[in-house]
Amino acid sequence: MKNRKLLMIPGPIEVDPSVLRAIGEVTTSHVAPNFIECFGNSIELMRKIWQAPYGQPFIIAGSGTLAMDMAVCNLIEPEENALVISTGYFGERYKNILTTYGAKVTVLQAEIGEIVPLEEVEKELSSKDYKLVTITHVDTSTGVLNDPQPIAEIAQKYNTLTILDGVCATAGEISKQEEWGIDVVLTGSQKAIGVPPGLALFVVSEKAMNVWKNRKNPVQNYYGSFTNWLPIMKAYEERKPSYFGTPPVNLIRALEVSLNLINNEGIENRIATHLVYAKAFRKAIQKIGLELVPKKEDEAANTMSAIYYPEGIDGNQFIKGISEYGVILAGGLHSEIKTKYFRVGHMGAITKSDIVVTLSAIEFALAKQKYKLTIGESIGTFLENL
Amino acid sequence: MKNRKLLMIPGPIEVDPSVLRAIGEVTTSHVAPNFIECFGNSIELMRKIWQAPYGQPFIIAGSGTLAMDMAVCNLIEPEENALVISTGYFGERYKNILTTYGAKVTVLQAEIGEIVPLEEVEKELSSKDYKLVTITHVDTSTGVLNDPQPIAEIAQKYNTLTILDGVCATAGEISKQEEWGIDVVLTGSQKAIGVPPGLALFVVSEKAMNVWKNRKNPVQNYYGSFTNWLPIMKAYEERKPSYFGTPPVNLIRALEVSLNLINNEGIENRIATHLVYAKAFRKAIQKIGLELVPKKEDEAANTMSAIYYPEGIDGNQFIKGISEYGVILAGGLHSEIKTKYFRVGHMGAITKSDIVVTLSAIEFALAKQKYKLTIGESIGTFLENL
Repeated sequence: MKNRKLLMIPGPIEVDPSVLRAIGEVTTSHVAPNFIECFGNSIELMRKIWQAPYGQPFIIAGSGTLAMDMAVCNLIEPEENALVISTGYFGERYKNILTTYGAKVTVLQAEIGEIVPLEEVEKELSSKDYKLVTITHVDTSTGVLNDPQPIAEIAQKYNTLTILDGVCATAGEISKQEEWGIDVVLTGSQKAIGVPPGLALFVVSEKAMNVWKNRKNPVQNYYGSFTNWLPIMKAYEERKPSYFGTPPVNLIRALEVSLNLINNEGIENRIATHLVYAKAFRKAIQKIGLELVPKKEDEAANTMSAIYYPEGIDGNQFIKGISEYGVILAGGLHSEIKTKYFRVGHMGAITKSDIVVTLSAIEFALAKQKYKLTIGESIGTFLENL
Repeated sequence: MKNRKLLMIPGPIEVDPSVLRAIGEVTTSHVAPNFIECFGNSIELMRKIWQAPYGQPFIIAGSGTLAMDMAVCNLIEPEENALVISTGYFGERYKNILTTYGAKVTVLQAEIGEIVPLEEVEKELSSKDYKLVTITHVDTSTGVLNDPQPIAEIAQKYNTLTILDGVCATAGEISKQEEWGIDVVLTGSQKAIGVPPGLALFVVSEKAMNVWKNRKNPVQNYYGSFTNWLPIMKAYEERKPSYFGTPPVNLIRALEVSLNLINNEGIENRIATHLVYAKAFRKAIQKIGLELVPKKEDEAANTMSAIYYPEGIDGNQFIKGISEYGVILAGGLHSEIKTKYFRVGHMGAITKSDIVVTLSAIEFALAKQKYKLTIGESIGTFLENL
């Protein structure tokens, strides 16, 4: 019998079999013509999926946190002001990154499960000269979804650069980098992009590239410096060999395959499917009496859900029970409510069947702890709402 | 017919089929019990292969350059003195990394194809208070091999930390971190470790970890900071779940498989084989009148060879010709002699047959340009000398 569990955490996620085949292809040279074509093509596909026709894509070996780090260390200079709009754990992370590079950081902290009101953002941005503002599109720790568009509009009004942490969002949530005027949109390969972990991916606007070019101080980070990587990205796009650090050939081949899958499906269709599945999943969960961490429906992510355990349910036993039914879910991450909730990823190449199996495991794991529910009810609700 | 070329560059290299199968296994959670075991086991295997029983291993998503960067940014502080013993392109790189973090850098530059005499190293280290010295074990740009042991001995005498860039050496050249007293030995996954590119790998001595713990200034780099990664490495080794950035699950699974292959063979045997193959390969190359970039036999790497084109041979045509015979070799990398030489990798999981095919391609590509040689002569010399 097959003996593997369905991976339904908010990244890494289930990936398409063709992506796994691609990562296992025989490793070629980083300057072999077929790999140069693969890298160049991936850069071009990123522009389409990011909806950033004039942006500069970067593909770097590292985790999503490296993408967060690179966006900041290349754009901020010591003593400059930076604003963090925090909806959880990853807002806190941006504060730490900015502090490392000498920025003066102000954090607008949302209540757990809520977003920061736009008025507060505008009030803060108008109060002093902010170099940049960071927004977490979906905070993986709370499942809260920000709408980046109005924030970007305000930021442009005050001439502040915008960095959108799209780690749990890009290619799963509506995001229009060029149209919305966002300066950096970043993610990791293992989220809605649908590739195993190991790639930091981001696109930088022309405006932000100019800000970087006109820095007064050198970038305080070697591996993450645009100076080292920009010529490499340009060379691959021009289909020319080049070298700074050896690119992760197998992962980039897998990336090309997954970006092609998304592009062939159409990024708008791919995102629309996420919205439909997520809405139906939330209804299913609520039908059996569970409550989401995000307090409002339109502030709940479509790539993942953070869900409170009902009263009387032991979290460790629940996650263990889920695993016995063949599904891997994630526990809490936000320190203040860590033991009170769990997280489900529903992004990328997942199918309706994956969600049905997950709901079934949730039902049985709850029932095992004497939680009262009608078995099958959440599944019915999910399928009815597709 | 099979339609792929043999990859004989100094990294990425041919990897064992079992390693490719491992990288293509279905992605699991970074906190799933089987992955925690895989990560913990890889850390323990690194200590054996590095011959560093008390060292702290790190496994991070990134290229070998990230390993170089992390070694420096965690150990150096602004205004401290650092010495670079440079035998090519990668010595130059260390100068740039050290400068990024505010070090005062002195470079001892070897002539191309030579090493820096020990007397010069001692003279320099005795002249002022050096915090650290960097050594390139094998410079991939010149194929020059340093003997790290006597340098480490001198460095210890002057209480200077040693960083050994083992990117093109670790698991292919003799290296005894604990016995020699080297503070950091670093590499990338795609070299003699035998895994596709995408992992920065290094082991830090207890002494260096203490130096880091007692820093006066914070580390100027976020993604590369030991503060973020040390608890993760410790947790995985203790077989406990933890999270900072999502580890590249598939690459680490491949790493475990390759480290096991090396460990089962025995690191000493694995290295001895490299020495035998490399010596026979050099004799073969010299037999047909080609000259190595390293000027002395015992300063020539055993993981790769840098070889001058004979007079009258056009480099581009030669590399193209090699490719037509089904082998990928690398051109020059060192700016001063870039068009005058080529590079062959012979490390990791390669076989005698791979080298025979490579020699055959070299012979035919030379003959095509009217170079005078007896076809088969280098192959005979290689096999006779095994």
